[in-house]
Order: sequence, then structure tokens, then C-alpha cells
Amino acid sequence: MLSFPFTWMTPSGTLFATLLSGEGIPYQWSALNDLIPDAVPSRCVRNFRIAAGLESGTHEGFVFQDSDLYKWIEGAAYSLSWHPDPELEKKIDSAVSLIAAAQQPDGYLDTYYIIGGLENRWTNLRDHHELYCAGHLIEAAVAYFQITGKRALLEVALRLVNHIDSVIGPEEGKLHGYPGHPIIEMALMRLYDVTRDPAHLRLAKYLIDERGRTPLFFDLETRNYGHSTPWKSAMAGYRYYQAHEPLREQRKAVGHAVRAVYLYSGMADVARETGDATLAEACRRLWENLTEHRMYVTGAIGSSEYGEGFTLDDDLPNSTIYGETCAAIGLVFFARRMLRLEARGEYADTMERALYNGVISGMQLDGKRFFYVNPLEVDPAACEEDYNLRHVKPQRQTWFGCACCPPNIIRLLSSLENYVSDFTGETLFVHLYVGGEIKEERMTLRVETRYPWEGNVKFTVCAAEGAERTLALRIPGWCRGWRLAVNGTEVSQRPVNGYVYLKRQWQAGDQIDLNLDMPAFPVRAHPRVKADAGKAALQRGPLVYCLEEADNGKRLHELRHKWPFASTEKWEPDLLGGIVSVTSEGLRDRESDWGSGLYGETAVGQDSAALRWIPYYAWANRDPGEMCVWVRT
Amino acid sequence: MLSFPFTWMTPSGTLFATLLSGEGIPYQWSALNDLIPDAVPSRCVRNFRIAAGLESGTHEGFVFQDSDLYKWIEGAAYSLSWHPDPELEKKIDSAVSLIAAAQQPDGYLDTYYIIGGLENRWTNLRDHHELYCAGHLIEAAVAYFQITGKRALLEVALRLVNHIDSVIGPEEGKLHGYPGHPIIEMALMRLYDVTRDPAHLRLAKYLIDERGRTPLFFDLETRNYGHSTPWKSAMAGYRYYQAHEPLREQRKAVGHAVRAVYLYSGMADVARETGDATLAEACRRLWENLTEHRMYVTGAIGSSEYGEGFTLDDDLPNSTIYGETCAAIGLVFFARRMLRLEARGEYADTMERALYNGVISGMQLDGKRFFYVNPLEVDPAACEEDYNLRHVKPQRQTWFGCACCPPNIIRLLSSLENYVSDFTGETLFVHLYVGGEIKEERMTLRVETRYPWEGNVKFTVCAAEGAERTLALRIPGWCRGWRLAVNGTEVSQRPVNGYVYLKRQWQAGDQIDLNLDMPAFPVRAHPRVKADAGKAALQRGPLVYCLEEADNGKRLHELRHKWPFASTEKWEPDLLGGIVSVTSEGLRDRESDWGSGLYGETAVGQDSAALRWIPYYAWANRDPGEMCVWVRT
Repeated sequence: MLSFPFTWMTPSGTLFATLLSGEGIPYQWSALNDLIPDAVPSRCVRNFRIAAGLESGTHEGFVFQDSDLYKWIEGAAYSLSWHPDPELEKKIDSAVSLIAAAQQPDGYLDTYYIIGGLENRWTNLRDHHELYCAGHLIEAAVAYFQITGKRALLEVALRLVNHIDSVIGPEEGKLHGYPGHPIIEMALMRLYDVTRDPAHLRLAKYLIDERGRTPLFFDLETRNYGHSTPWKSAMAGYRYYQAHEPLREQRKAVGHAVRAVYLYSGMADVARETGDATLAEACRRLWENLTEHRMYVTGAIGSSEYGEGFTLDDDLPNSTIYGETCAAIGLVFFARRMLRLEARGEYADTMERALYNGVISGMQLDGKRFFYVNPLEVDPAACEEDYNLRHVKPQRQTWFGCACCPPNIIRLLSSLENYVSDFTGETLFVHLYVGGEIKEERMTLRVETRYPWEGNVKFTVCAAEGAERTLALRIPGWCRGWRLAVNGTEVSQRPVNGYVYLKRQWQAGDQIDLNLDMPAFPVRAHPRVKADAGKAALQRGPLVYCLEEADNGKRLHELRHKWPFASTEKWEPDLLGGIVSVTSEGLRDRESDWGSGLYGETAVGQDSAALRWIPYYAWANRDPGEMCVWVRT
Repeated sequence: MLSFPFTWMTPSGTLFATLLSGEGIPYQWSALNDLIPDAVPSRCVRNFRIAAGLESGTHEGFVFQDSDLYKWIEGAAYSLSWHPDPELEKKIDSAVSLIAAAQQPDGYLDTYYIIGGLENRWTNLRDHHELYCAGHLIEAAVAYFQITGKRALLEVALRLVNHIDSVIGPEEGKLHGYPGHPIIEMALMRLYDVTRDPAHLRLAKYLIDERGRTPLFFDLETRNYGHSTPWKSAMAGYRYYQAHEPLREQRKAVGHAVRAVYLYSGMADVARETGDATLAEACRRLWENLTEHRMYVTGAIGSSEYGEGFTLDDDLPNSTIYGETCAAIGLVFFARRMLRLEARGEYADTMERALYNGVISGMQLDGKRFFYVNPLEVDPAACEEDYNLRHVKPQRQTWFGCACCPPNIIRLLSSLENYVSDFTGETLFVHLYVGGEIKEERMTLRVETRYPWEGNVKFTVCAAEGAERTLALRIPGWCRGWRLAVNGTEVSQRPVNGYVYLKRQWQAGDQIDLNLDMPAFPVRAHPRVKADAGKAALQRGPLVYCLEEADNGKRLHELRHKWPFASTEKWEPDLLGGIVSVTSEGLRDRESDWGSGLYGETAVGQDSAALRWIPYYAWANRDPGEMCVWVRT
């Protein structure tokens, strides 16, 4: 386990930790309680109060509004592990009591139906998110139990799971169904980690196995209850729900991007736990399609606003993109689980790509504003006048009617430690380089690094009870040159599947120095990708960079890279919370060469122009302006 | 007047003339009578039969369905001038009788309200197209009268105009309104050309003057009748109708593209007839904004499917474009009228650009299928899976529920002669180079040319009654080198505003040879245009070219121009109805250089690849495939 204080993003402190505990988490609590002026009211806590009989009124917000409180509890719970806060814990406890008070005698819990009429519950698994909310409740309950040892929320979750188990399953008289929006699959697997109750694994596996089987449950449900179909279009249909065919037969990442990666995460969990090789193979196929054909360089996924999802292979438009923050978070979940399934660097590479770029771009540096959509190219004027860009905002928003993303970032970042390392009995894997301590039963490693700004990572063995251990250090996919020394002696091992394995009887005081070369470099997309043809982005370490109008003026599309590539880098502690900025040599189209008219024969000349790059995640933290990631070569 | 036989597009004959008379016009008559198997039924003629009491039933189709018959009559009428056809004339006469039978005693004529309830007529000028249909009726009536001398339809139109004049106008008790969809403005001006009835000019001018004035008529109408607003969005609103502010104050081409250019055409007509300088100036401003910032290289206009209209300056996306055929046709109308207002080559250049590219691309070479949307970049697979491209078809369609475009092409092409020349009392302007005869009172010119395939144009004076005449020949904006000789003697005059003026006492037998250099050349967009940055298209004479998958394989975005530009040209009589194809030197990204993964550092090499170009208008006449106009430089 990584223990506090850890350093991430800023070597001087814990930028995000501070934000989360000091600003982000309390801010979101206020939002859920409708206390933020000018923000869309959440009504989330209010719904629970009504459901618990403490207040009267009707349910407001989306059918999945409950999940926001669960996500907040989960995130807040994690933060207690590295930032104990009795006041915060009291707030969580009060929320837990409220949730417990809303739960029905039979274990059912979903304020939408408790308030609106229990007689209609479980009649719309496709679109009414009861199982989705249950999944988030389970995740919150497990986290709060693991961090604090308190069982109150876990008991609520167990009662709900028992109820669900009585409603859904293969037995006659039960619904042979599964959720329109997955998450309960991976949540049940987390619960199973804690309970080892076979019923929990069995239910998760059932939801995976049943999905997409003929006769389609959603068809039966539609026939029984006459639901309208929101995704009639041939472009979506049941692909929107990843329920168009059995999961083991699916070969393309399709439909709603968040649902897809949440589902694949649950699949990977079940495959690992059950050793189901065909399910693992299905996960690998979907992983490959997703990361080889349908992922942006920032780890964003979801090319289209329509259905908030995938389109077709290699279709990665930079401005009309959806790239929901939650989808990048879900990609981190999926990558993490594939990494548990098999320790291959490609999973960690993608996990890192999404985490350092498309995930944290979703939150303003002060933790108070959020992006739903994370574009790779923005012109604020176009966002106002082009309907195809109506979903793209040039500035983060205070809150959303559908506020899935803000608490999702919180729960991911505040559980960062869960993504850093794995201990598999013999081998201690280090996937991400984050300053702090990594502890397993018999060994403690202190990690000191200014990563991702610098590539030096120093490991010191603090305690090692005579254990023979293999230490597996990840060599990131982006890294072209690196050196590794143990106690000052260079190690020349080559990485296997992305990891260097160091096996020895580690002693307290042993020191490992990993040096990852981290020059800024131009990165290109596969030639198949039309949107990026003739363009290059810039990456330094795991960070993808971008150009902003604030540093480069208007009409960023008039800029080009100059070759051979040459750049300088600078640590700027006072800029955007502390970043390494990169300046590379570029060119700018000389508009003055152009004569008159919109079309002509003039090939305009170009003037030298420094390209001033900042990390992508930090964009839109100054005045609104243009931004782009891909620049003409 | 240009007289038949004329040659256009193909020197060997009259490709479009044949199509129109032999295929296009009869085909559309069948469509309007619901006789085309597998095509969306029009119900247009049926509605008239019901309105005339010859059949019972309800109105079907759009509120503007009547206009399709009027447009067909107009197009068919023109064709009689160069291709007399008694059978066709009988069909028109039968249609005219039907229309007259449907007209109400007070002159009112619109089958939607005649069938659905006359008590509701004139209550929704904004969206119910009564004035739009009236405009098309007037255009048809004038054309049929001018070609055949028959007054029956003209009388119908005059009765309707009298009725409209009793309903709309500045007087108290009349509606101070104007149409949501313009066209009646320019139609009334055509009628005025024939009638010289001041009431017709007055009504046209009133509709122009009143539009967008406060209090907004559409607001009053909405308040009185509680209409819902289809264009609530801040992106559209009354801008959709070009009714957001008085026309003389409008500075940007906004809203629905067809409505815009139809309106501007009427404005230009009124400005010319009345000598209204501020209105002429408004036309010039809108023209400049439109052609300098909001027009594709093919003359297509309308960047977005939303509102079928304009977005913002220099926003010209090639794949998500709307580019409706009718909008390019409307641009020809507007250009033609600006050219009548003042003889400047820029108007003729744009008229030619739209006519030879974005207009005729709307019709299949066999005259039987049509594009509504005319994209500059297409991938059929993306059209199926990307919702943002749902309006873009990789193949022309047999017919449309809203079939405005097919008869609009017919009426433009069959009246081509009206766009070729002007005679202003002293000066005979030749705007377009089309083979045939140009006649004015005292002089007849025979024009022989293989334009647009070759740049030689030979004029022979056939008759000239001792007249001193100035012959003004247009030097196209695309032309970089040209020679002009009169009776074999080179003329060294320079063009003034795009025309060379030759003044003399012309004699029968005089011969003028104009030689326009017509090499294929790369054309670029202004550096402001993001969509075309780092790209060049190809043009030869007035024709914009494109690459198709049929000639260049898949993944056209992997192709580049090679510099210095070099190309060869070939007349291919058997390809696509006869075209000059162009082959230029290019490069293709070498996919095999790429390693693994979606992103990487490899700058792939490029192999030589011939770029095989065909004229844009002829695309999608073979198997469906990719197409693009703009290619990386």
C-alpha cells in the first residue's frame, strides 16, 4: 500500500491531495446538498431525505442521481486514508445513516422508485439504472469499510445485494436480466474480495454471461412494459448498451463509452477470478480494438456526442469528440484490471496515458470546475456557433445536471495508491512512479521522485525481513533510454513485457536508482487516422502537451512544427500550479502573403514561431481561448 | 438570347439537354405523380387533384409540396425553348389546368390550406411556406408565358398576387409580414419585368423593407397563434430566417443557406430596379461575407446540417458540410443578380464556380438520382456509423420526401441561356462560354468552344446591322494567361473588372478568338480556413477536381501532393460521360513503415503515387467509395 504523504504531479507537495481534501471533496458535498450558488442543483441528498421520510416532495434529477452521493462517499472515504479528517468522517457517517434510513425492509434501495412507486421497480433494467446505483453503493460501502472498518454502509450494500440476488438470476421466476449501464459487475467483484461469498461472484458472472444472449432480455422487457427505445438508430440500437451479442463474441468496442469500459472492467475481474480463458480472450480482443483503433492520444475515448460513444475504427476527430471524463476514468479501471490479469506494460502504459491526460484534464486546477467533454482542439467562437460542437465547452463548468464526472475524478484520484503497485506473492510490481511509500507484508520501499516532471526515481528499501523478492519496475512505453542501478551498480537487464525484474534478498538500506530519459518528443498517430494525418503532437514522459491561445496567439491551425525537431524545457513553479513547459521550434503561416479572395494559388510562406506547449491536463485554466494538441508537420 | 442547339459540358452534343428532355424532365414528372417504384412518393400532383375536388383525401407531404410542381413546370417550360416537345407541352398544360382548378375564387392557392382548412391560412408566414409556394408559382408562370406565350398560368399567378396584395402590406388591417422562406421577392421582380405593374414592385420592396424590423412580425405571429419555435437555440433563432434585424443592417450571411441566397437575390433585384444605393450596399456586404468567408471551393454553401445553414466565418468543414444543391443554385441566382447590378467579373466567377461544381454535382450523370448534400470529403463507412454524417450520402438518391433540389437543378440548367450573356443597350457582355448563338436585336454571335474542357472560344459575327457595339468578354478569375485576337490581329487590352471591352462597328464575318490558358493548378484556401490548412485542391478551368477511391484506392487521406506540381491531362470520351482527367504527381504514406500501436514516434516514409483526378461534379457515378477534394501539401 502506498502511504501518505505521497507526492504526485507536484514534487513540492500533494497538489491533488490538497485539492481533494481542502477543496474538491467539501465542494462536492456542498453541491450534492444544493449549496453552491449558480450551480445546477443536484437534489441528490434531498432525494434520500424524501425517501427516508424526513422530507416530503418528489424525486428530482436523473434516475441515477443516487450514484452521485455514493461516488462522493467512496472518494471521501479514500481520502481519509491519507488525510484523516474527523469532520469529513462525520459527514460521511451522516450520509450513511441517511442512506440506511432510506433502505426498504426487503433491502431495496433506489430513491427514484422509493419516492415514485415501488410497484414499478425492476421493470426497466435497460434505462433506469437501479443496478448502476447499486454498483456505486457497493463500491462506496467496500471502500468505507476497508478504510475505516465501519460496517454500516457495507451492511446496507449486503442487504441490497441479497435483494438483487432474489430478483435476478438464472432460476425460473427471476429476471434473466442485466443492467443497461454496467458497473455492478466490477462492484460485486470488489465485494467478493471482501466477503468471499460465492453468491457475489456467481451474480457478477451471471450478469456477464447473460448479457447479449438470445432471446435478448431488453427485447422481452420492452415487450412486457412497452418502453420506448431511445436508441432506435441503426448506428446504436443495443450496441449502445454492449448488449447486441454475447460478450464473448464481441470484437469491437462499441456504444456508450463509459458503459463499455465499466463492463469490460467487470469482465476482466470475473475472468481473473474464475480463470475463464475465453472471457480473458474476449477482454484482450476488446482491449486491442479499443486501444489500437478507438482511443485518443490523451486516453480519451468516445468519438461522438451521439450516444456518447464510439463510432468506427480510426475515427478520432479532435474537435467534435466526446471524450467524457468518466470514460477515461473507466479506461483506467479497465487497464488496471487487465494489468491484474497479466502484467504487461501495455496496460500500464494506457492506464498512465489516460490518468495523466484525459482524466485529470476533467478537473480545474482549483478542484472546483469540471469538464464532461475533453476535446483535443477547441475554438471558443466555434463552440458558440457550430451546433456540432454544442457539447464542447471551452471552460470547465461548476456542476452538471448529470454530474457523473466530478465525483468520479475524486474517487479515482483519492484512491491513486491502488493503481501504483501490485504484490503477487513473489513479485512486487511498480506500475506508476509516485513519491511515497510502498508497503507489503515484509518489505517497505520509499519512493522519491519528481515524476512526471523528471525521470529519476529513487527507491530505498526501508524494511525487508530477509525476504527474497522480485521487484518488477515498469519501463514506460514512451521511454527510449533508461538506466537502472542497484546500490550504485548498473543493471543491464532488458525489460520483459514492459517490466525489468530484479530478484534478490533485499536488505534495508538497499537503493535502486531508475533513470528514465524524458525529452519532449513529437508523437504521431497511425497513418490510418485521418484526423491526425500530416500532424504531430508533443509528449514528454507520460504527459501529452498542447498549445493554447494564451501562449501562442489565435489561429493555432496556422502553426507548424519545424524539422528537425528541437525543443527546450523549463520548470515553471508559478505557472498552472507548477509545470514543465516546452518550447519547440515552429513556423507560422504568413497570412500577409495571401492576396485577396477565399481561394487562390498562393502558397503562403512561413515565419519562424516558437511553439509554447503546456501539459494538456492544465489547459483552460486561464482565459478562454483556442487550444490544440495536434499540429501540422 | 442563346439559341439551340448549344453545347455545354460536352462538345459532341448537349449532354444535359439530352438528359433533361429525354430523362430528367419526364422522370421528375413521374416522380411528382408517384409513379417511380422504390422512390419516396411525392403526393404533389395528388394534393392538387384533391384541392381541385377531383379526388378525395388529405394533404400529404410537406407544407411546401406544391412548389415541386411549380418548379417542374418552370424547368419543363424552359426546355421547350431549345427542345420543342408537344407531348411535354401537353403535360404542362394539363398541370396548369389542374392548378387553375385548385385556385380559390379569391385567388388564394395553396393545397395545404385548401385541403386542410382555409380558416387557418395566413396564420403562419414564418413556417408554412404559402408565400414560398406563391413565389415558385410566379416563376413558373412567367417562364411558361415567356416561352410559349400562353397566359393561363400567368393569370393564375396574377390572381394569387392580387390576393396576397390584399392580405400583406403596410396598410392598417393587413399583415405587416414577410415569408419565413424567401423567393417571392425575386419572383415578384420577374413578374414585374413582364407586367411593369407598380403593385408588383411595391410588394417585393415591402417584403424586403419590412423584414427584421421591430416589432418583429414573427414575434407577433407567435404571440397571436401560439406557434412553437423550431429554432429556439441561440445558434439560430430568427437568424435562421434572416429576420433577426433589418436587411440593410445585416453584415453576415447567417441562417438557412437557401433562404439566405434567395432573399439576397430578391434584394439585389429590388436594389437594381429602384436604384436603392443602401440596399445595393447591403447586398455587396453580404456577398463579400458569403464569398470571402462562407463558401466552399465548389461553390457549396452551408457548413452545418443544423439549420441547414451557415456557422461562423471561415468554418468550412469538408465532411460534415451541408452544401445543399439548392443553396448552390441560390448562389448562382444571387451572383447572376449582382452581375446585373454591376458587371464585375467576381460575380461571374462565383456564378461559374457554383454552376460547374456544387450545382451539377447534385445530379447523377443519367439525370435520375440526386444529392441533397454535396460533401467535399466522404468515407462511406463513416456515413453509416458516424451520426454527425447522417445527412451525408455516398450515393445520389432516387427522390426525397423534401424534393426541393431535383426540380431546382432542372429549372436552372434548362434556363442556362439566361446566365450566359447580358445586353445593356450598348454593351453585349459574355459571362459564360457556352457553344451556340447569342442574339440581340441587331447582332448575332456564333460561339464555338469545347469549354470547359478546352480554353479556346471562337466568336463569329453572323449578323450585324451596322451596329456599333461593345463586346465585353469575361476573363475568368482562374485564368492566368490568355490571348485575344480580332480577325487574326492580337488585341492587347487589359480587362477592367474582369471583362475586356471591344468597341467597334462589327461586321458580319468578323471573328474573335479568345484563348484561355487552362492548365490544371493547385488551389489553396486562405490560411484562416482551418479545415483546409496544409492542403491544396486541384482546379482546371472552372472545374474543381477530386480524388475518388475508384481511381486512387482507399484511405485517400494518406495521399499528398508532390512539389513542384506536375500534371498531365487527358480527354477521356468514354469516362463519366466524357471528361478531361488529370493525373498529378503525388505521394502516399507508407503504412508499412509504422510499427505497432496507435501512437508512436515513427514519421512514416512516402512512396510515389499518381493522383488521378476527375471533375468534382462527376463523383459518385461509379461504385460507392471514398472521395476528397482537399489533399495534403
